[in-house]
Order: sequence, then C-alpha cells, then structure tokens
Amino acid sequence: MNAQTIISSPQNSQIQLVRKLLSQSKARQREQAFVAEGVRLIQDGLRSGFPVRLILKKENSSPLTEEFVAGIAQDHSISVVQDKLFEELSDTENPQGLLAVFGMFEQALPKELTFLVVLDQIRDPGNMGTILRSAEAAGAEAVLLPSGNTDPFSPKVVRSGMGAHFRLPILQLPWEAIQALVTGLPVFHADMDGEKSCWLADFQSPLVLLIGGEAQGISPEGQKLATSSVHIPMKGQTESLNAAVSASVLMFEVMRQRTRNINSN
Amino acid sequence: MNAQTIISSPQNSQIQLVRKLLSQSKARQREQAFVAEGVRLIQDGLRSGFPVRLILKKENSSPLTEEFVAGIAQDHSISVVQDKLFEELSDTENPQGLLAVFGMFEQALPKELTFLVVLDQIRDPGNMGTILRSAEAAGAEAVLLPSGNTDPFSPKVVRSGMGAHFRLPILQLPWEAIQALVTGLPVFHADMDGEKSCWLADFQSPLVLLIGGEAQGISPEGQKLATSSVHIPMKGQTESLNAAVSASVLMFEVMRQRTRNINSN
Repeated sequence: MNAQTIISSPQNSQIQLVRKLLSQSKARQREQAFVAEGVRLIQDGLRSGFPVRLILKKENSSPLTEEFVAGIAQDHSISVVQDKLFEELSDTENPQGLLAVFGMFEQALPKELTFLVVLDQIRDPGNMGTILRSAEAAGAEAVLLPSGNTDPFSPKVVRSGMGAHFRLPILQLPWEAIQALVTGLPVFHADMDGEKSCWLADFQSPLVLLIGGEAQGISPEGQKLATSSVHIPMKGQTESLNAAVSASVLMFEVMRQRTRNINSN
Repeated sequence: MNAQTIISSPQNSQIQLVRKLLSQSKARQREQAFVAEGVRLIQDGLRSGFPVRLILKKENSSPLTEEFVAGIAQDHSISVVQDKLFEELSDTENPQGLLAVFGMFEQALPKELTFLVVLDQIRDPGNMGTILRSAEAAGAEAVLLPSGNTDPFSPKVVRSGMGAHFRLPILQLPWEAIQALVTGLPVFHADMDGEKSCWLADFQSPLVLLIGGEAQGISPEGQKLATSSVHIPMKGQTESLNAAVSASVLMFEVMRQRTRNINSN
C-alpha cells in the first residue's frame, strides 16, 4: 500500500458511517448498507460480488489481515484507522482489525420456487444468524422476513450467519408481498402441537416453512399464511426446542426427503 | 409466609454462596451445587426431586413469583432479599426475582445404554445449553462431558438448557471413564468430512454421538474414542453448521430412524 493518512478523528465521515451502521437499524435501512467484520466474512462478500463501499483496517492488525489486505489492495481502497479509534468503533469480537461496509444487494430468486423459509418474530440475533447459516446449508432458496423479526443485518446476525448473507437471498418484505410470493405453495407452520410429524409430512413437493419466534410463536398474519402445521416428535418433558434448532431440524428434513427422492430415481 | 427478616447485607452467607456459585466454576465444583433462576426452572428442579439448598426471593417480585412462592412455602424455607441487593446479585435476566441453589444429583443411567452423547470442547455456554435441551428432547440417555467443555452448570448454560439439567443425566467424567462406559458401542464422530451421510448411517442400533467444539473440533482423546465418522449433507458454500445445530440434527436423526423402526414393526 502507498503511504496514506491514518484516520484518527472520531468525526471522520467513514468512522461516523460505520458507527451508525453498527448500532442503528434505521441507518442500515436508510443507507441500504451493513458492516461485515473479519477477513473471512469480507472475503465471502467480495467473492459474491457484493458492492463494497469502504474497508477499514486497524493500523496494527493481525498478520492474517495484513496478508489479505495486501492481496486485495490493487482492487480496493483500504483506509487505515488508528488502533484506539478502531477498537472503540468495533465490537470486542474483531481481533483481526478489519471491517467493511457492503451495500445491500437484492439477490435474484430462482424462477421456480421449491423451498422458501419465512421467519416470524425471531427476536434473538444469534438465532437469526444461525437460521440463515442453516438455511443456506440446507438449500433453501430464500429467507423471507416480515416486520417483527430482529434486523438480519445487525453485526451479531451478520457474524453468526457466517457468510450466508452473501449467498442466500434474504428478503425483508411486507406480509402482502410474502403472501403473493408463496401463493400456490403449501405453508407448513412449525409448531410443537402441529398436526403431522415432520417425518411423515410431504417435504418433497415445493413448500414453504414458517418458523415462529422464541417467545410468542407466530403472529396473526403468520397464522393466516399457514396452510398446515408440523411438529418435531420429542421425548422427555421438554416442551419446545430452541428456535434455531427447530428451524434447522426441519430444513434438513426437507433436504433429506429430497435427497432420498433423487437417490431412488 | 411468616414475617421474616429481609436480607440486606452483601456479607450474608447465603448471598455470598449464591454470588460464588453464579460466577465461579470452582465454587460449583467444591459445593457440588448450582443456581437456577426463575419460576419455571425452579419448578422443574423441585418436580425432579433435586435437593434444594436455598431459595431467594426479591422483596418486591412479580405476581407470578409471589403466587409460586405461596404454593411452595409450606415445604420450603424462602429467604427474602432487599430489591437492590437481589438485583446486584443476579443476572439482569432474572426479572422474576427468584433463584434457588440446587445440589448436583447424580441421575441414574438406564441399564442398557442405547443412545449416549459425548461433547468435546464445546466452549459456548449458549450452545452447550441448547445441546442439552435438544438431547433430552431427542431421547439421549445421558450427555458425557470430558474436561475441555464449558461448565454445564454455569448460569447461562442452565438458563438455555430449559430444565434439561433436572431430567437428563449430565456426567462430567475423565476420558478413561468415558472410554469404559462406551466400550462395545460404535462412536460416530460428527464431522463435515465424515465418511458416511447421517441419513445412510445405521442409527437404529445402540450408539454414541461424539460432537466436537465450535473452533477446534474434537481433541486427540476424542479422536481415539471415535470408531467412525458421519457428516450432514450440505448444499451451498457453507463449510459448517453451528455446533448446537449439527448436534441437534444428528440427535433427531437418531430418533427418526428409531421411530421409523418402531412404526414398521
């Protein structure tokens, strides 16, 4: 990198933008942008062709970071931030000293929709991120988010999503748009009192999984969307599973049934 | 309840015990006791017959708490703690104003072992609690914990375990004892590069699932214990799943295969 000024003022416009994007959901909406922290996530974002608005590096960062930054410096301008200012800015969980602002980017949906996930009132950022990570791995084509969920682009969700944000369409939509999108598909509401065992339900045909939140379950709008309900059979006296666990068990059951189908043809 | 003194001193021995049990793994080991917070968990503990050492109630607690406390006051002595002192003591996540100290209690294992889970280097308390909750729900007979895992009796693990601590044998054992206990059973190591798909592996016969930690995977001792490995088939570019998710998907696959077996007999 060429010699360059080191950002040391909290009033610097890049610093102020990052601070807002890290802390305010409204700012993320207004700017249509979010922050990704650490080499791995930023690598994922660049590979997926997400528009990168700025990259900030801590003056004295890790060897891994320096190596990564050297490799991308030709194509990207990287601003260097004084150590103390960088540390104040970022979460304690950014030991690599690197963060980037990416623009949100509407990823295209496949023409034929066969596996969508709707989340309804998921409030815990860790659960949200874990569900997005599992959804990508289980082959969901998109995750649809009506209002009432935690912001999917907050730092904690982005972190626990482990790159899913860059590879899986995540659509924040009003209920009417979700309704329009899923018309004609069965919508299975995941419910501990659901009618059918998930192992006996038909998950081979195109479908939508509707996952309710940790505390309140699904909203009245979600109830209207559901066409039937499924449960995960349970032993013991546990009354429910963690929301990210239920969602993941069901999503992988979809994949299992479809994989079996492929194998037997 | 009879009129009783309200504890207001931080030097009170009950207060000091609770503070230590909440914050120090060593104190939990030494006292062979742990803290459960909130009506629901304490109810679970009492129902399961766990030895209760003390119950502390915030002077002005929630109506739910008052009702619960009134119901158990005949059989249990409940100490009342000044609001401010109680708040300082407990995590912010105890809005109900109730906590109890339970003695650890070695729950008996079934004579014939058919489904054991070994955790190896699980470091995140939320993941540990979620795995315990899922293990109970999926019908595991015990969870075995060699050293190197996060303390299963820390407040966050107890909270996210949602009562599993009172119904599922959780055994902290040295590797040699684990080795002895599982002798003769196949030990499936959950690994993204595992030999066999979990959907094709035989999970109907008695087995042990070995789950590695978030960062390092399994230890050399865990590797020695494993007799084969299984993976969860994945799409997309995700390289791994959250540890609690992998564990749960596999545990419910065990239950699915065994349920199917029962149905077809």
